[in-house]
Formats: sequence, C-alpha cells, structure tokens
Amino acid sequence: MHFLKELILILIFTTMCGQICTRLNLPAVIGQLLSGIILGPAILGLVHPSNTITLFSEIGVTLLMFLAGLESDLDLLKKHFKLSFAVAGIGVILPVTFIGLACLAFKMKFLEALFIGIVFAATSVSISVMVLKEADKLNSQAGMAILGAAVVDDILAVITLSLFTSFSHEGGQSGLTNNLGLNFLIQIVYFVAIWLVFRYVAPILIKFAKKIEIDYAVVICSLILAFSLAWAAEIVGLSEVVGAFFGGLAIRQTDQFEEVHSSVSIIGYTFFIPVFLANIGLVMTFSSFFKDLSFIIILSILAFFSKFWAGKYTSKFFGFDNLEASMVGAGMVSRGEVALIVAQIGIGYHLFPKDIYSSLILIIIITTVISPFVLNYFIKKAN
Amino acid sequence: MHFLKELILILIFTTMCGQICTRLNLPAVIGQLLSGIILGPAILGLVHPSNTITLFSEIGVTLLMFLAGLESDLDLLKKHFKLSFAVAGIGVILPVTFIGLACLAFKMKFLEALFIGIVFAATSVSISVMVLKEADKLNSQAGMAILGAAVVDDILAVITLSLFTSFSHEGGQSGLTNNLGLNFLIQIVYFVAIWLVFRYVAPILIKFAKKIEIDYAVVICSLILAFSLAWAAEIVGLSEVVGAFFGGLAIRQTDQFEEVHSSVSIIGYTFFIPVFLANIGLVMTFSSFFKDLSFIIILSILAFFSKFWAGKYTSKFFGFDNLEASMVGAGMVSRGEVALIVAQIGIGYHLFPKDIYSSLILIIIITTVISPFVLNYFIKKAN
Repeated sequence: MHFLKELILILIFTTMCGQICTRLNLPAVIGQLLSGIILGPAILGLVHPSNTITLFSEIGVTLLMFLAGLESDLDLLKKHFKLSFAVAGIGVILPVTFIGLACLAFKMKFLEALFIGIVFAATSVSISVMVLKEADKLNSQAGMAILGAAVVDDILAVITLSLFTSFSHEGGQSGLTNNLGLNFLIQIVYFVAIWLVFRYVAPILIKFAKKIEIDYAVVICSLILAFSLAWAAEIVGLSEVVGAFFGGLAIRQTDQFEEVHSSVSIIGYTFFIPVFLANIGLVMTFSSFFKDLSFIIILSILAFFSKFWAGKYTSKFFGFDNLEASMVGAGMVSRGEVALIVAQIGIGYHLFPKDIYSSLILIIIITTVISPFVLNYFIKKAN
Repeated sequence: MHFLKELILILIFTTMCGQICTRLNLPAVIGQLLSGIILGPAILGLVHPSNTITLFSEIGVTLLMFLAGLESDLDLLKKHFKLSFAVAGIGVILPVTFIGLACLAFKMKFLEALFIGIVFAATSVSISVMVLKEADKLNSQAGMAILGAAVVDDILAVITLSLFTSFSHEGGQSGLTNNLGLNFLIQIVYFVAIWLVFRYVAPILIKFAKKIEIDYAVVICSLILAFSLAWAAEIVGLSEVVGAFFGGLAIRQTDQFEEVHSSVSIIGYTFFIPVFLANIGLVMTFSSFFKDLSFIIILSILAFFSKFWAGKYTSKFFGFDNLEASMVGAGMVSRGEVALIVAQIGIGYHLFPKDIYSSLILIIIITTVISPFVLNYFIKKAN
C-alpha cells in the first residue's frame, strides 16, 4: 500500500506542524495547512496529489462540516439569516467586480476576467470553522453569521456558475442541467427534502438506530444520513459540504447528538481532516511565482479585501461592533478547496489562459493560509 | 464522489444484514460478510470491486488487527507459543498435501497443484477475531492459540511462497528478494525492530504524545506507529496485518491503551471494517459454479477439514479439551483476504490454469463464510 506511507507522513507532519503553531500561540490549523506545502512538490516533494488523497480529503471536509452542523445553534443561525444573506451576496459581488476589473487591466478577455472573478467569489468556510472551533467561538454571533453566509454563498456560487456557463455556452458542469430555472427548481426540491429530514427522517432514523444491536449503530446511521445529504447536494449541483452541514444540524435536534459528535470528531480529526488540510498545500508549486509576481500580489490583495470588506461592512451595517464585524470579514476570506475546484472546472473548459493556472492556485492558497492568521488576530483581540 | 454512493450502500447493507444475524443469534460478522455477496456482482450488482474499496478494506483489516493486538494478553500469547507454532505448521502441511493431491487427481500439473495447495495454506484470522471479540472470547486459551498461530502462519506462508517461487523460477513477489536466506535474515531484523518498539519506542512515543496539545494526539501517534509497523511488515514480505497486530500489542503495554482502543474501535467499526467485510464478498461471482461443481465441492471440503483437523488435533495433543480444540480448529479455517491475495499473485504469474480462478475465489469465500458459523457453534456449545 503506497498510500500508507503517504498517510503516515501526513499524520506526522500535520501533528508536528500543528503542535509548533500551538506553541507559538497560533491556531493549529495554520501548521496543518503549512505541512501540506512542506510535504508537497513545493518544498520536500515527499507526497504528491493523487485521487486517493483527494478522496480522503473530500471525506475529511465532509466530516468537518458535519461536525460544524452538529455544533451549530439553529436558532442563532436563523436569527442572523438576513445578515448572512447580505454578507454572502455582497461577498460575491465585490470579488467578481474587483478581480474581474484587475484581470481586464492585465489585458485578459472579458469572459476570462469574469470567470477568474467567479473563482474568487466562493468562500470555503471549513478553515474558518476550524479556527472558530479551536477558539470555542463557533456559536458566537460572528460564528453563526459566517456559517450562515457560507451556506448562502454556496447557493449563490452555483447560480453564478450556471449563469456564466449558460451565458458563455460552455456546457454545465455543476448541477443537472444548463437550464437556470430548472436548476433553481431542483434546489428548491432539495431544500424541501432537507426540511423533511429535519422534521421526520432524522428523529425516526435515530430512534430506529438505537434499537440496532450492532456496535456504534447510532454513529453509523448518522454517517449514512450525512453522506446521503452530501451526495444529494452534489447531485443537485450544491457542494457536498453544505449537505453534510445540514445533516449535522438535523442530528443535533436528536437526543443522541453528543455521542455522534464525539465519535465523528475522532474519525475526522485522527484520519480524514489532517489529509484534507495537507491536501490544500499539496497542489502548490512556486513555478510561476517570479514570472507573475505583480499579478499574484495584486490579485491576492484584492481577493483578500473584497471578501473582508464585504463581510465587515455588511456586518457593521447590521449592528455588529467593529471587532465582531472584522471577525465575520476575516472568516469569509478563505477560498480553500471550493475555489480550487472552480479553478479546475475552468481549466477543464478552457475558460481562462492555461499559463496563469498555477498562479491562480497560488493566490487561492495564499488567501486560504492568511485567513486563519487574520481571524485568529481578531478573536484574540476580542477576548 | 462516486465512492460516496458505494460507501452509503455498504454501510446500510452491512448494518442491516449484521442486525438480522444478531436477531437470529448468529455473529453479526456473518451478515456483514453476506452483505458483500448481496451488493456485489453475484446478486444485485450495485457495488463493484475497485481500488478505492480495496484500499479502505486494507485499512479496515489493518485497524482490526491493531485492535486485536490492543486486546491481546501478551503473557497468554507467550504461554501458548509452542502450541501456536505447531498449529500453524501442521495447518500449512495438511492443506498443501490434501489440496495438492486433489488437484493432481483433477489432472493438473505438479507445480500448479502445489501452488493451489499453497493458496489454501494461509489462514486469515481477521474474521475469527471478530467472532471471538463479539463473544468476548479473544483472551481465552483458544483465542490466544488462534492469534499466535495466525502470526506464525503468516511467517510460514511467506517462507512457503518464497520457496515455491525460487523453486519454480517465477520471480519473487513477496519480500524483497528471491533469496530465501536473505529473506529470512530481513525478517529477523524486522522482529528485532519489533522488540525495540515494544521495549523503547512505544513507551517513549506515548509519553511524548501526551505532551502534544493537538486533539487526539495520543490516538494519532498510535495510528502512526501501527501504520508504520504494517508498512514495514509489507516491505519485508510479511502481511500488513501482522505488523498492525504487533503495533497493538506494543501500545497495550502503555498506560494510554484504553483511550487508543476506544477511539480506534470507533474509526474501524463505523467506517473501514464494514468495507473490509463487504469487500470479501464483492469479488464473488457464480459464473463457474455449475461448470466446476465437483471441483468446488471437493476442494471446499478439503480446505475446511485440513485446517480444522490441523488446529483441533494439535490442540488436543497439547492438552486442550475437545470443545476448545474444536474452537482452535474452526478459528483457523477462514482464508479470507490472505488467500485472495495469494490467488491474485498466482493469476498474475500464470501459476495455475486461468479458467479455475473464479472457482478458487468461490472456494476461498465459502471457507471464509462457513468459518464464523462453525466457530460460533463451538463457542455457544462451550458456554
């Protein structure tokens, strides 16, 4: 098993780098992210991206968002729903505008510039979730605003991508069809199904699972539910993590959620989540670094501030104080695996010049690695 | 993620079939084994063997044997060492003789007949371990004899395979070289290393892990140790599960073994072990069933009794009573993934006629599925 060697290396490096960051009073997740860059082709070249690592990484982020759902206060989420909606909406408009204009200034074609804007429109909330969990802040006002905004953001990202692909006639790759109205309808059906899961399926499933005499039956049934919702989300064009998040929220309404939470934490944190974090850095190379230096620096700055300002000023408008608003802003900056996937779609469909692909990856990773530093800074300041 | 759908199906079917068997007063593992046959090409055709499922399955059996190590009483293992050695030795000689002669009677060439004998020489103890664990009998006299014999059996299997391949000039596929003496030397080095791990590495590692502030650091470090020993075992030509078993025995000597045991149980039983059990049945087809009916029936009977008698009468010779001796015999019958791997090696190297491959697989699966029934029968009778 070649994978065993890579798994051993990933577990050693994420643990060590995480521990070093903890000692430096930084979130462990930063070290775990950096360990991928160290292990990968960028520095040591000991572990290379592969389908197996990607699969483990996908399961990792699915479990992570399932856990986030299990820890989230539904009432608090509902309370901040309008804010979340506004943060997500403005958080899509600003990056598309800023990054798109910058790309035009770098002499790209209009559609290319627009698509690169869309790459940076979607937030990956998973890294922020880890920072918030480590600091015990997931169920704060800011935490719920970030999580809610991430869910809306994902829906907006799908709509934006469908709009773009139906407009540019490049064929749909997310969702079932290219028809925007139909896509929207399918997603409404999905959310009705989610409501049914909350109301009926999850409680009945857990009641049933408690009667099964197989070890850990409740945990297994919860995983079946989470994976099924993740899988269904992917079918309707949403991302798997949103489905898993809803699964977590649904299980939280049952009386077994503590057992599920502690068990899934063990499965996730000992096995799959380290692979997920390392995998983000694995795709990075420095090959384009000096060639496209100005492009990388300018886009990184714009990618950062477009999301940060969108989160911060929208939250302030909704009455958050300065620090809380900055936490929301910082929590939305990370692009993580979501942007990496959109960039991959783009390269597959020739939606932007091939030679800037590695620069784009680098910018995505820069925003992903910077985000926990900044979020951590505001959390520490708030305490 | 196509794999997500398959994982969901495997979790649903193993849980349901396991529960049905529990209700019928049978070990759950039987249902979980059968669920693979039901899901696979043999019946429903919903899940097909794949590299990903094989990988999950390998991790599953590695975790299972790590758990067996964590639960094993080292003193009891040592006490029954001579018996284990004898059971394993005779348990290699009888199947090779019986099956080999039968194959000659079926008009195969000498080397082909010998190789098919070797396919059935190796025991897979993992299924028996699950039955013993379910019945809380792992740390019984019979349980320790079975586990000890399985370790020796694995070493003998490697030696037999190396002997065969150096004799038949077909090139070595297990171990580093074709040189029997060198292979033996390398394995001695491995066992010296294992001794060092027991004596120094494991205690220091756990002491060190307790100081790490990352969540579940002790569990992660134990997994690193287990995977490293499994990986090293594969390098020296032993099977991974033996390495993982030694890892479990080593961690058991430390004061954190209970935390490690409960965490690894959750990881294994909710995720990887169900895939391992289902995977055994996934490779089965009935295509050759009626064509080679007499071959399949005769070899299944010989495969069963050669191991059963070897275990039973050797144990009786060492003073076990009739029921305990029968438990040892039944515990050694299962061929599981080990024989499947040897058969795969054989087909790769053209060591037997290609058209009997699917019959061989069927015989292996028959012995694997029968074994927990028989073992369970003797355990129930002994209570």
